[in-house]
Amino acid sequence: MTLSQKDAIYNWHPYTQHQDLGLLPAIVKAKGVYFYDENNKSYLDAISSWWTCVYGHSHPAIIQAVKNQLETLDHVLFGGFTHQAAVELSQKLFEILPHYQKVFYSDNGSTAVEVALKACLQFFINQNIKKTKIIAFEDAYHGDTFGAMAVSGINVFHEAFKDILIEVVRIPIPTHENENEVSSTFENLVNTNEYACFIFEPLVQGAAGMRMYNANSLDLMIEIAKNNQVFTIADEVMTGFGKTGKPFAINHLTHQPDVICLSKALTAGTLPMAVTLFTQKIFDGFLSSSVNQSFMHGHTFTANPLGCAVAKASIELFQTKEIQNNLENINQKHLEFKEHIKNHPRVEKVEVLGVILSITIKTEEDTAYYGTFRNKLYQFFIENGILIRPMGNVIYTMPPFIISNAELDIIYNAFEACLNTVY
Amino acid sequence: MTLSQKDAIYNWHPYTQHQDLGLLPAIVKAKGVYFYDENNKSYLDAISSWWTCVYGHSHPAIIQAVKNQLETLDHVLFGGFTHQAAVELSQKLFEILPHYQKVFYSDNGSTAVEVALKACLQFFINQNIKKTKIIAFEDAYHGDTFGAMAVSGINVFHEAFKDILIEVVRIPIPTHENENEVSSTFENLVNTNEYACFIFEPLVQGAAGMRMYNANSLDLMIEIAKNNQVFTIADEVMTGFGKTGKPFAINHLTHQPDVICLSKALTAGTLPMAVTLFTQKIFDGFLSSSVNQSFMHGHTFTANPLGCAVAKASIELFQTKEIQNNLENINQKHLEFKEHIKNHPRVEKVEVLGVILSITIKTEEDTAYYGTFRNKLYQFFIENGILIRPMGNVIYTMPPFIISNAELDIIYNAFEACLNTVY
Repeated sequence: MTLSQKDAIYNWHPYTQHQDLGLLPAIVKAKGVYFYDENNKSYLDAISSWWTCVYGHSHPAIIQAVKNQLETLDHVLFGGFTHQAAVELSQKLFEILPHYQKVFYSDNGSTAVEVALKACLQFFINQNIKKTKIIAFEDAYHGDTFGAMAVSGINVFHEAFKDILIEVVRIPIPTHENENEVSSTFENLVNTNEYACFIFEPLVQGAAGMRMYNANSLDLMIEIAKNNQVFTIADEVMTGFGKTGKPFAINHLTHQPDVICLSKALTAGTLPMAVTLFTQKIFDGFLSSSVNQSFMHGHTFTANPLGCAVAKASIELFQTKEIQNNLENINQKHLEFKEHIKNHPRVEKVEVLGVILSITIKTEEDTAYYGTFRNKLYQFFIENGILIRPMGNVIYTMPPFIISNAELDIIYNAFEACLNTVY
Repeated sequence: MTLSQKDAIYNWHPYTQHQDLGLLPAIVKAKGVYFYDENNKSYLDAISSWWTCVYGHSHPAIIQAVKNQLETLDHVLFGGFTHQAAVELSQKLFEILPHYQKVFYSDNGSTAVEVALKACLQFFINQNIKKTKIIAFEDAYHGDTFGAMAVSGINVFHEAFKDILIEVVRIPIPTHENENEVSSTFENLVNTNEYACFIFEPLVQGAAGMRMYNANSLDLMIEIAKNNQVFTIADEVMTGFGKTGKPFAINHLTHQPDVICLSKALTAGTLPMAVTLFTQKIFDGFLSSSVNQSFMHGHTFTANPLGCAVAKASIELFQTKEIQNNLENINQKHLEFKEHIKNHPRVEKVEVLGVILSITIKTEEDTAYYGTFRNKLYQFFIENGILIRPMGNVIYTMPPFIISNAELDIIYNAFEACLNTVY
């Protein structure tokens, strides 16, 4: 039996309708921007395996970091102990994110968001201030655990659970047309003093279809929140580490959020880890003679040394001149392709932000997020040996930062071929 | 500056009141049952670093498994693809847990529980059956994300959030005194047809203070649940892989739960991973022509190949004659120590189950979970180079399975010295 056949017997896959699914390609190795299935078919990883493997697969510096850590300390619990890898990573994080003073470790984007939400809510509980509600954007995606689901707003993901989630008010992302209205709605909300925090994906809503919005409008909202003692949480799980043309999306802002969530590229797509960074003010809100006012949250592998070692090596890679040059080059190539393709009759919109290039395809009727048209697009690229995951009628690439110009051209050519042939 | 001093500047630790905390030991290496801080002080890891590192730190077979996997495939997204390490691990899991047919991967115990709860709730939503409530035990601990908090019941952990969690009914664990009452309360609840599932830590509630209870009573409750179409979820994140004297706590039962959650020892304390195993019946409840009826849950690193490779190597270790003999030996030694210590004037209760030995210490007044007495106990052991984490007035050990008799005696002697000296 092939691996793919065995997989169909055993495994329940994420975000997958298994009825009539067919067999999934079984990957047996990966190197650089490519991975290979058991039939030796190659796939160009044009979305960095869900926005993670940004230095390519099996980068020697990452492999070495894991091996070195394995030889000294595999794991120690982070309750009552610290360790070298965590201290060194934390120090590194505050070098590149100097607005923050304390880091809380967890395992994935969902838990990083849960940590952020719980800390903001408990900050006010500790002070006996009744602020129990949360503001989020429509069509946001922040993860799939119950707290993360509550602040997410894409129906296909979490509609089944909508009646049992915590109370969240949703507002539209600011656009050129609605920005005054959104900011006044937002101001009215925060003036009620009922809201503990406002969570958002800064500049680009990933799972919504790489929907980009204006930094200035967001900046104004953060300023309003700050003036009204509402904490702001930047979910940079997707955007963090160079995706938007600056190291972090918040680097496009004047006002800095109180909390930032990071994961995915943090460990270069090697193993699960996430961090939530806080200002000293929030941390200080938990200092007390009572254990009940401390933050009673944790996960078994919190600050796992292997994850910390990989993350430190990843940030060091990120800071190299080579990667910084690559980021600029990919952006430049994306912009050139945008000029080339923008007048294609099937292009409704093409947008570039940093290393993200997304195309909204004109369709005759509305396309569902995981609908028939989306599946046709997905299959077109898979058949051509390219991994992208379209969202409705949106196709995009967020390639590994080590991609060559020739490999970028493969993606662009496939995008153009898709526009010409997939209906 | 020392690592410990730097840690105090940067890191927010789990379950920790940082006011007046002092410096935490900074671990720089680990091997076997010991880890070592930056001053070269050693600590005997008597609780396997939160019940994970059961084959000792940096076991050669585990290190090799990570290295081998790193050389072939670091990571590939599990949406739309599978890979060799996941297929092989899943196959291995169903060998040792033949009651289950499908596995859903995630990153930690909290997410494994969220996956279990969401799947049970959505199973009924998909059928248009209104079953939206959950039954759990008092003093349960199932994790710290919003869904996992809702089914947990230890006040010190989640009381701050109690008003905004999903609806859960809590019943006491069955004891010799109350078992008829508990089972009749339980039967009345499931008869209302309002409950989707019942979640429990089988046989022993870990975080509640290693509180043990009867397999027969639980068996009866599972039978009642099955007769009333209420799904049962065994949270074996702590108990799984040999802790209770059988491979899994559910092996002590006649009726098998519909869902089982595993993490911790699954990856031998090397890196974060969790699995939730389901019966075919539950999986089939998501098959449909509609994507809305599929399970829209995932985490970026779902089924991370490194985690899968480590877990497979861990299970192979678990199945060796050597480890199975060790498990028997530790249990035997625990029972001997129980006989020795049970009449000590300060022992209120001493219990042994598999490799778990717990002592409830007699105290003049009630002791808080994280109170002064607990902190004195903790410090006593740390000063003696032994890591245990007391819960209130309960001290326990759940040592790595590779521990020697001489090392076990060090723990027992420290327990006895503690009883004689700490007030």
